[in-house]
Amino acid sequence: MEKLKRSERIAAMVKILGDHPNKIFTLNHFTEKFNSAKSTISEDIVVVKQAMEKMSLGKVKTISGAAGGVRYIPFTTKSENKRILEKVSERLSQNDRILPGGFLYMTDVIYSPLIIQGIGEIFASQFDYSDVDYIVTVETKGIPLALMVAKAMNLPLVILRRDSKVTEGSTVSINYVSGSTGKIQKMSLSRRAIKPGSKVIIIDDFMKAGGTAQGMVDMMREFDTEVKGIGVLIATKEPEKKVVEDYIPLLILEEVQQAEKTINIYPNAILI
Amino acid sequence: MEKLKRSERIAAMVKILGDHPNKIFTLNHFTEKFNSAKSTISEDIVVVKQAMEKMSLGKVKTISGAAGGVRYIPFTTKSENKRILEKVSERLSQNDRILPGGFLYMTDVIYSPLIIQGIGEIFASQFDYSDVDYIVTVETKGIPLALMVAKAMNLPLVILRRDSKVTEGSTVSINYVSGSTGKIQKMSLSRRAIKPGSKVIIIDDFMKAGGTAQGMVDMMREFDTEVKGIGVLIATKEPEKKVVEDYIPLLILEEVQQAEKTINIYPNAILI
Repeated sequence: MEKLKRSERIAAMVKILGDHPNKIFTLNHFTEKFNSAKSTISEDIVVVKQAMEKMSLGKVKTISGAAGGVRYIPFTTKSENKRILEKVSERLSQNDRILPGGFLYMTDVIYSPLIIQGIGEIFASQFDYSDVDYIVTVETKGIPLALMVAKAMNLPLVILRRDSKVTEGSTVSINYVSGSTGKIQKMSLSRRAIKPGSKVIIIDDFMKAGGTAQGMVDMMREFDTEVKGIGVLIATKEPEKKVVEDYIPLLILEEVQQAEKTINIYPNAILI
Repeated sequence: MEKLKRSERIAAMVKILGDHPNKIFTLNHFTEKFNSAKSTISEDIVVVKQAMEKMSLGKVKTISGAAGGVRYIPFTTKSENKRILEKVSERLSQNDRILPGGFLYMTDVIYSPLIIQGIGEIFASQFDYSDVDYIVTVETKGIPLALMVAKAMNLPLVILRRDSKVTEGSTVSINYVSGSTGKIQKMSLSRRAIKPGSKVIIIDDFMKAGGTAQGMVDMMREFDTEVKGIGVLIATKEPEKKVVEDYIPLLILEEVQQAEKTINIYPNAILI
C-alpha cells in the first residue's frame, strides 16, 4: 500500500474512531493499517485528541497497558445541548402537530436520523455507562432514539415487545399499569436477550406518569438486572410526581392547548 | 478562537462530514468554523478526499456552484462487503440460534449498532438514492436496520405500524396476505408521514415469500408514492419466486435443519 501522509493518516483515523464510538482500537491496529511506526501513530493521536477538544467534537482517550489503545467518546457541551434541544423544541412547537385528544404528532422528528443522532450523544454525555451492558427500550416509537444512544455508548440494544413472537424463543412476559390511562398492558422479552446480573440504561421517547418506564424496571427485575439510569426525550410537566423517581428528561412538555393551538415545550434547564 | 493547524482542521472536518453522510456543507461553513481562507479549506478537502479513497472509507464529493459545497458519501467496496457479510453469516450460523419451528434467533445481531451500521452502508452502496425521499420499513425487527440505512443516505425514516395509534393522527390502513403463512395481516400509516408523489426505498430484516414487502408496496400506492427499490438483510432461498420481483438481499438463508442443528446462510454472491 502507498504510504499515507500525516494529514491523510489523521483523516482516516478520525473516520475510523468516530464511526465506532467507545470501541478501543489498539495502536497496532493503526500501525498495521497505515504501515507506520508506533511513535508516529502516537503523535497522530495527540493531534486528533487536540482537534476534537478544541472544536468540542467529543473526547479521545488513550488507554495504556496490555489491553490499551485509543477510543473516541462522544461528548456534548452545554452549548451544544442548547443548540440541539432548542431546535427540537422549536420543531415540536409547530401548532399543526396537535392531534385530537391533545396528542402531539412527532414521529417525523423522532425518526429523523440526524436529529436523534445528536440526541443520542446528549444522552451519552449525561450517564455514566462505564459498566453498563445494554440499552433497553420498548417498541415502537422509542426504538430509533434508543438505537442512537446504544450506538454512542457502543452497547447492544434490547427491545421489549408488546407480544411474544415465535422469532424470540422462550420469553418472559409481565403485565403493567399505564400510569396515565390506568389500563393494564403487557410487555415481553426473550429469555436470551439479557444475561442475568447485567446493568442497563432504559431509554424511551415519552414519559407522562411513568408507568411504562416502571414496567421496564419491573421486567429488568425478572432478569436479575440492575437499572442504572432512565432517560426520556420528553417528559410531561404534569403529573410532577412520576411512578419512577430517577430519570433524565431532555425536554419538558408543559402544555398542549388544543383550543388555542399552542404547545409549550422547552429544554430541561439543567442540561443547557 | 485559537487557529487550528492543518492536520487539526482536517481531523475536525472528517468528524463533521462523517457524522452527517450526504449532507452538503458549504465551504463558508468551514471557513467560518476554522477561521481560515477558502483556498486553505479547499486544499484541506483534497487531502480528506484522498485519504478516504486510499483507505476505502467512502467518498467525498465537492459540488460547485451557488448551492455548492462538500459532502461525505458512505461507500463500501466488495471486499468490505465480504468482510462484513461473512462475519454476520458466521454469527447467524451458530447452531444455538435455532428456535422451535425452525426459526432463527437473530435480534442480538440485528439490534447491534456496530453491525447494522456497516450493513446500512452496504445498502447505501447498492441503491441509487439520489432522488429518493424516504426509507420505509414496518415495525419491529427491521427498524434499527432501516434507521441505519436512512442515516447513511441522510433520508427520513417512515415506520409502518401494525395498528393505528392515537399519536399518529388520521391513518391509512390496509390488509395484506403474509406470503408464507397465508394469514391476513394489517398495517397502517399516518396520512402525514409521506408527501404524495414521493419516492421511497423499502428496507426490512427478513423476506420469505415477500408478502410483507408487497404489503408495503401496496401501502405506498395509497400514498401515490413510487417504490424505487427494496432491500432485505436476509432472504430465504425457498420459495425462489417471491411475491415481489426486484429486491436486493444481502444474505441468503438456504436451510435451517432443526434435527441436525445446522444453519446454512451466506452472503449474496453478487455483492462480494
